[in-house]
Amino acid sequence: MKEKVILYENERIDDLMKSDLKIIQNSKGFRFSLDAVLLANFVTVRSGDTVLDLGTGNGVIPLLLSRISKAKHICGLEIQEEVADMAKRSVMLNGLNERISIVQGDLRQGDKLFDGKRFSVVVSNPPYTSAGGGIINPEDSKAISRHEITCTLEDVVCASSRLVNSRGRVALIHRPSRLVDIFLLMRKYNLEPKRVRLVHSRPGRKANLVLIEAIKDGRPELEVLEPLYIYRDEFGEEYSAEMERVYSGAKAGEVG
Amino acid sequence: MKEKVILYENERIDDLMKSDLKIIQNSKGFRFSLDAVLLANFVTVRSGDTVLDLGTGNGVIPLLLSRISKAKHICGLEIQEEVADMAKRSVMLNGLNERISIVQGDLRQGDKLFDGKRFSVVVSNPPYTSAGGGIINPEDSKAISRHEITCTLEDVVCASSRLVNSRGRVALIHRPSRLVDIFLLMRKYNLEPKRVRLVHSRPGRKANLVLIEAIKDGRPELEVLEPLYIYRDEFGEEYSAEMERVYSGAKAGEVG
Repeated sequence: MKEKVILYENERIDDLMKSDLKIIQNSKGFRFSLDAVLLANFVTVRSGDTVLDLGTGNGVIPLLLSRISKAKHICGLEIQEEVADMAKRSVMLNGLNERISIVQGDLRQGDKLFDGKRFSVVVSNPPYTSAGGGIINPEDSKAISRHEITCTLEDVVCASSRLVNSRGRVALIHRPSRLVDIFLLMRKYNLEPKRVRLVHSRPGRKANLVLIEAIKDGRPELEVLEPLYIYRDEFGEEYSAEMERVYSGAKAGEVG
Repeated sequence: MKEKVILYENERIDDLMKSDLKIIQNSKGFRFSLDAVLLANFVTVRSGDTVLDLGTGNGVIPLLLSRISKAKHICGLEIQEEVADMAKRSVMLNGLNERISIVQGDLRQGDKLFDGKRFSVVVSNPPYTSAGGGIINPEDSKAISRHEITCTLEDVVCASSRLVNSRGRVALIHRPSRLVDIFLLMRKYNLEPKRVRLVHSRPGRKANLVLIEAIKDGRPELEVLEPLYIYRDEFGEEYSAEMERVYSGAKAGEVG
């Protein structure tokens, strides 16, 4: 049942692209990125799967997966209290309390938080930028979601491996510049990369993002899929046909 | 000076694509592949560089690099005597004895063969398929060039690292299915992957091949370039504009 929810200062209710879903965003704080949307459309989720989203932010990935997958249950874990609270209110707003749960906590404490429970699928759109030399305000919710302040890439890969079933799937989105590190960390934690897709802003440009799906305890054999282009042509602002489908709220790859 | 050369049974002299070069091939044995051509067009070779091609086959990479690069000297190493001999005769045929040398030997003995000399650039189009369960005739020159009979992927990466200068470049072409292994082996031998390019038969298809360039003792930071398509469209037999340039014997990326 859809419920009325409280909005705090600088918060607003946005349409979640062209789906029937609504999402709470903070115009001065956390807002979802295209990257999370791409990840939700990339990961393999099968009927009856349980999914965990590490660092869920305002819950965009659980909300999207509730529409574009047949997951039985989706859990979003978020370290920042006010952001987790925003995600909880978005779940209520859409009447999705039975399919989505939001947990506030630190992914480095995953075993304790989930009491040893493991998921069929773990996804994460982690911070891309290393914490660097102290110019970041650690109270800033945008900074925490973008910089490796509360967790490193290794923390994310390690937690993913600990929280997924053997033969379960782990999907990440990150920058191509870190792909070597990601492969090495995945092997270290028994996650075998199986599917990779590069995301390019447009034809003829280098990749901006990389989507990776691994299988826990999987056999080595990687597939690199066709690239995903955001814009259709080398110039111009027209989205590719696939991005049009993504924005329409359909699963990418679905026709019309 | 171009020289007349002997041809043995099943050998013939082919044009090397649309360049002015000729190459000796064996219609029942070793013939060069598109993969070697793609690698020659991918690797960064600067004016004055010394280049080593591990497993040069009939010398197609040294021959191409003599045209599309300003390398000072190019050496091809080939384990199979009759194939190395074919490469030597192709070099003579084109009058390139001063710029290209062909060495017959085992890349696992590289330090001894080259007496500790190191190169600015090492390239290799190694065998892709593991030796498997004994159905391969080890006397077959095609089999040796395609299966890991005389060397494994680790042998190739290890030899590349030992034979290249610090800050020198190592470029390989291989199957995407092995990309995780390649990255792990490169890191193990202090080769940092810096540039990757996926090769797809056509738009909308998964990648068939991957080109990788690493820098010895380089700083971690990978770029994934725009994909290379062999055919222009999802259907049809028209080459992409880039492949037209490759076949014309120009450096890929050069305009007309």
